[in-house]
Amino acid sequence: MTWCRQLVGRTNAPRRCFSIAKNNGTHKERVVILGSGWAGYGFARTLDPAKYERIIISPRSYFVFTPLLASTSVGTLEFRTILEPVRRIPGKIGFYQGWADDIDFERKIISVETNAAEEAASKTVIPAPSPSSSSETGGPGKAPKGDLIEIPYDKLVIACGAYSQTFGIEGVREYAHFLRDIGDARRIRLRVLSLFEQCAYPRGSDHLSDDDKRQLLHFAIVGGGPTGIEFAAELHDLIRDDLAPIYPELAPLVSITVYDVAPKVLPMFDRALAKYAMDTFSRQNIKVKTEHHLERLRLADGELGRRRGVLKIKIKEYGDEEVGAGLVVWSTGLMPNPLIAKLAAKRLPLPGANPLSTSPPTTRHLLRDARTGGILTDAYLRARTTTSTSEPGSAPEPDGVLEDVYVIGDCAVMENDRTLPKTAQVASQQATYLAKALNRAAAAGGGGGAEDKPFRFRNWGTLTYLGSWKAIHQSQADELKGWVAWVVWRGAYLTKSMSWRNKLLVPIYWVVSWIFGRGISRF
Amino acid sequence: MTWCRQLVGRTNAPRRCFSIAKNNGTHKERVVILGSGWAGYGFARTLDPAKYERIIISPRSYFVFTPLLASTSVGTLEFRTILEPVRRIPGKIGFYQGWADDIDFERKIISVETNAAEEAASKTVIPAPSPSSSSETGGPGKAPKGDLIEIPYDKLVIACGAYSQTFGIEGVREYAHFLRDIGDARRIRLRVLSLFEQCAYPRGSDHLSDDDKRQLLHFAIVGGGPTGIEFAAELHDLIRDDLAPIYPELAPLVSITVYDVAPKVLPMFDRALAKYAMDTFSRQNIKVKTEHHLERLRLADGELGRRRGVLKIKIKEYGDEEVGAGLVVWSTGLMPNPLIAKLAAKRLPLPGANPLSTSPPTTRHLLRDARTGGILTDAYLRARTTTSTSEPGSAPEPDGVLEDVYVIGDCAVMENDRTLPKTAQVASQQATYLAKALNRAAAAGGGGGAEDKPFRFRNWGTLTYLGSWKAIHQSQADELKGWVAWVVWRGAYLTKSMSWRNKLLVPIYWVVSWIFGRGISRF
Repeated sequence: MTWCRQLVGRTNAPRRCFSIAKNNGTHKERVVILGSGWAGYGFARTLDPAKYERIIISPRSYFVFTPLLASTSVGTLEFRTILEPVRRIPGKIGFYQGWADDIDFERKIISVETNAAEEAASKTVIPAPSPSSSSETGGPGKAPKGDLIEIPYDKLVIACGAYSQTFGIEGVREYAHFLRDIGDARRIRLRVLSLFEQCAYPRGSDHLSDDDKRQLLHFAIVGGGPTGIEFAAELHDLIRDDLAPIYPELAPLVSITVYDVAPKVLPMFDRALAKYAMDTFSRQNIKVKTEHHLERLRLADGELGRRRGVLKIKIKEYGDEEVGAGLVVWSTGLMPNPLIAKLAAKRLPLPGANPLSTSPPTTRHLLRDARTGGILTDAYLRARTTTSTSEPGSAPEPDGVLEDVYVIGDCAVMENDRTLPKTAQVASQQATYLAKALNRAAAAGGGGGAEDKPFRFRNWGTLTYLGSWKAIHQSQADELKGWVAWVVWRGAYLTKSMSWRNKLLVPIYWVVSWIFGRGISRF
Repeated sequence: MTWCRQLVGRTNAPRRCFSIAKNNGTHKERVVILGSGWAGYGFARTLDPAKYERIIISPRSYFVFTPLLASTSVGTLEFRTILEPVRRIPGKIGFYQGWADDIDFERKIISVETNAAEEAASKTVIPAPSPSSSSETGGPGKAPKGDLIEIPYDKLVIACGAYSQTFGIEGVREYAHFLRDIGDARRIRLRVLSLFEQCAYPRGSDHLSDDDKRQLLHFAIVGGGPTGIEFAAELHDLIRDDLAPIYPELAPLVSITVYDVAPKVLPMFDRALAKYAMDTFSRQNIKVKTEHHLERLRLADGELGRRRGVLKIKIKEYGDEEVGAGLVVWSTGLMPNPLIAKLAAKRLPLPGANPLSTSPPTTRHLLRDARTGGILTDAYLRARTTTSTSEPGSAPEPDGVLEDVYVIGDCAVMENDRTLPKTAQVASQQATYLAKALNRAAAAGGGGGAEDKPFRFRNWGTLTYLGSWKAIHQSQADELKGWVAWVVWRGAYLTKSMSWRNKLLVPIYWVVSWIFGRGISRF
C-alpha cells in the first residue's frame, strides 16, 4: 500500500521519518531508558537524537502529566489532554512496550517482557506482598507472561519510578483506587458518576435507604499530601458545580473525608498555609481527620458490598465501628519498584578481575539506600556500587560506579542529598541535567560519563490546589495563597513539559468546563 | 453539606434546578421516553418541560452523535465531543438508567431493569440467538439481573431503536466489533493502535513472521453501507497520516478490505457517485469485495488466535481458504429490538370491553411490520393495534391505535410509507414532529393525540466520507463530490443536535488533529 505523505504541515509525527536517517550502520551510542514518567520521558525529550540512538522501554506508551491527573479524574479536563505519546517525541525514537524483567550488566542486555495488549498497564497495579521471583517485576500477577525480547544498550538510564505504598494494609491492593496513571483517573471518574446514578433511582425491589446512600456517597481519601488534598478539592468542585444541580436530592447525603496518620496534612507547607488550606476545606465541608490509622479495607456485607461495591474502612481510633464509603482513594506515598531489589541482588562484573585468580572471592553489587530502598547514585546520577569480600551487609560503603548505568527519578537516591523528595520536580530536573551532560559528552567526543558540574536541585516551590479556584504556593522566596496562587498554579502547568497540542487543549477545556460544566457522560 | 451555587454563568446544568419547580403536585402529564438515541433524545429535547414532565429510560446516560462515531474510533475527535449527557438536556428532566423489561399498557406502568454500574451498556451487545424469555430485553446475558423498578406514565414514546443484524452467522456476536456506541469506538481505537504496537517488537521468543503481521494488520469491514465505508476511509486516513510515519516498517504489511454481499456498495448513491467512491478507494488501496458472503468468524489457531486475537474469516467464494484479520468491524444493518416482540405478543386491553361479557373471546395486539419486525404506526406515529377473535395471524388488519403510546425511530414502521430508511434523519424528524405535536396539543388544552398534519419525511440527502478530505453527497436536488462535499459534510454536522460545548470542541479537534496529528495514546 502506498502510504504517501500529505503535504500538510504537521509539527510532530512526520518529522522523524524523513529528516533523520535510520541508525543502522551509524556509530551512535544506543541509550536505553527504562520508564516513561517525569524522569524517563524528560530525559528522552532532552537527549539529542543526532548524537544518540534513543530507545524507551515502558509499560505505558505515553507520559502522564501527573499534576493534572486529579483534574481529569473529575472531568475538568479530558484524559488525553494530559498524555504525551512516547512515539511523538520529536526526532527518531525507539519504543518497546513492556516491563524490564532483568538486566545483564555484563553483556549490557535488557530482557523485556512485552505487553502491547489493549489497555495494558494504564491501571496502577500493586505487586502482591510476597511476589514469586519470576514475576515480581512483571505486570498484573495473573496475566499470562508476555513474550520476552532482549534489547542491548550502550548506556542505560533506569527511571522506572516507584509503586504506591500500601504498608501491607489488608484490602488496600484489592479495593482502593490509586491516582497515578490515566486508567486510574478514568476508573475513579466512572465510579463517582456511577455512584450518583445508582442512588438516583426511585424505590425498587432492592431499595437503598438514605443510610445506604450516605455510605455510597461517602468519598474517602487516605493520605493528606498534595495528591490527596487536590483530589478532594477537585471532587468537591465537581459535586458542587455539576452533580448537585442534577441530583439535588442527593447533595445532602454526600461527604468527603481525608484521613492521615500525621498530626497535620500538607507537611511541606508552613503552618499558616496549611491552616489556610484547612480553613478552606472546612468552609467546603470537606472533613480532615488527622492522626487516624486505617487498619483494614473490605467489601461491605451483602448486596451493598457485592453489587454496589461499598467498602468498609476499619480505623484504629474508632475501634470496631467501621466507616462505609463508595470510593477510597489511596495516596500515602511510594515504595520501591520490585525491579530495584532484583537488580541490587545481582553480582556485578568486577572491573579488571582475572577469572583465573585464586584470591578470596570478591563480590560487587549495586548499592541501595537503607531507608527508602532506592538505588544510590553519585552527584552525577551514576549508579553506585560496593565491593566486598562478604555478602552485602547493612551499611556497605560505596566504592565505585557502574559504568554507563544512570539512575534518575523516584528510584534514585543521591548519596550527597538523600532527603530529596520523590517529586516530579526532582525527577524532571535530574532528567534534564543528565541528558544535557550526555549531549555535551558526545559533542566533546568522549564516550564516558558526565564529568562536569554535579547535579543540584533547585526548589521551585510547591503548589496545591484547594478547590473553588484557590491554591496555596510555597517556595523559599515567597508564599502565595488564594486567587493569586490559583492563577500561578494554572499558568505554571501550561509551560512545563507539554506538547503544543496539549498546551492548546488544556486551556480550551478549562474555559469549556467553566462555561458549560465538566464532562459527565459515563462510558 | 452546603453545595452553594457559584455565581458563574453556566448555560446548561444549573438552569434546571432553579428555574423550574418540582413537578410533584402539578397537573402536567408525564411523558416517558424509552431510548436516548436520535429518536428518544431528539424528542426529549423538543418536548416542552413547561407542558409535560419528561422522563427518559435508557441503558445509556448519553446521546451519541453517530455520524462522527467513526471519527472518534480513529482519534480524529475525542470520544466525549460526540456525546450529549441526557441529564444536561435543558429544563428539568428525569432519567433512569436501565432497560425497559416490560410494559403494562393497561396500568400504564413500565418495569425497568436498572443498571448504573460503571461502563454499563456503552458496548454494543447482540442478544443471544435464542434468548430466554426473562432476559431477552435485558443487558449482557450473563450479568446479574439488575434491580427492578416501576415507572408509571401518562404518555409513552417507544424509541428503543434496533440491534445490529448478524444474520446468525457463527462467531460474529463473539468476535466482531460493532460501531454503534461510544464503547465500541473506544475498543476499536484501542485494538487498532494495539495491533501496530504488537507488530513493532524486534525478534523475541514468540516472534511474529511477516505473514503473521499481515494478518494482524488486515482490517476487515463487513457491510458496504455508509457506516462501513466511512470507517474504512477514516481508518485509512489514520494509518496514512499518523501510524505509517511512526511505524514505517509496518506500512507495507497493512491492508483494508470492505466485504459486501451486494453487487455494489453504497446502494443509496447513484451509479456515478458510487463509482467515484470506488475510484477513490482504489487509489487509497482499500479493497472492496462485492458479492462476497461471509460464513463464519473464528479465532485463529494457536497463539495467534489465543494471545493476539487474530480472527479467521470464512468466505463462501473462497471455499476452505480462510482470510486472517486483526479486526473485523461489522455493519450490515439492523434487526428488531427483542422488546418489540415481547410487546407485540402482549394482549392489550379492549376498549370499552365488559369483563362480564359472554361474547366470544376477542384479543387485541400491537401490530408489527411483517418484513422488518418494527411496530406499525399510523401517520401520526401512534402505535397501531389489531383486534381479532383468533391469535394474531400473518397479515392482520390494523383497526385501531393504542391510546397514548407512540413509536418513533428505528423500531417504528409507518403504515403509509413502510420503506422509510432506518436512519438518523428519519428518527430525528419523527422526534421533532411528535414533540411539537404534543406541545401544541398541551397548549390547546387537549390531553389526547396530535390531530394535525400527518408526518412527512423530508429527504435532506445522504453524505458519506471517503477519506482524504473527500465525500459524496446525494439528494433529490443535487449531487456533490470531492472537496465541496467534504466542506458540506463537515459543516452540516456542526449545526445539528449538538450542544454548544461540542459545537466548539468538534472543530477545535478537527484543527488540532489536522495540525498535530490524531490522538494516538492508548489507555
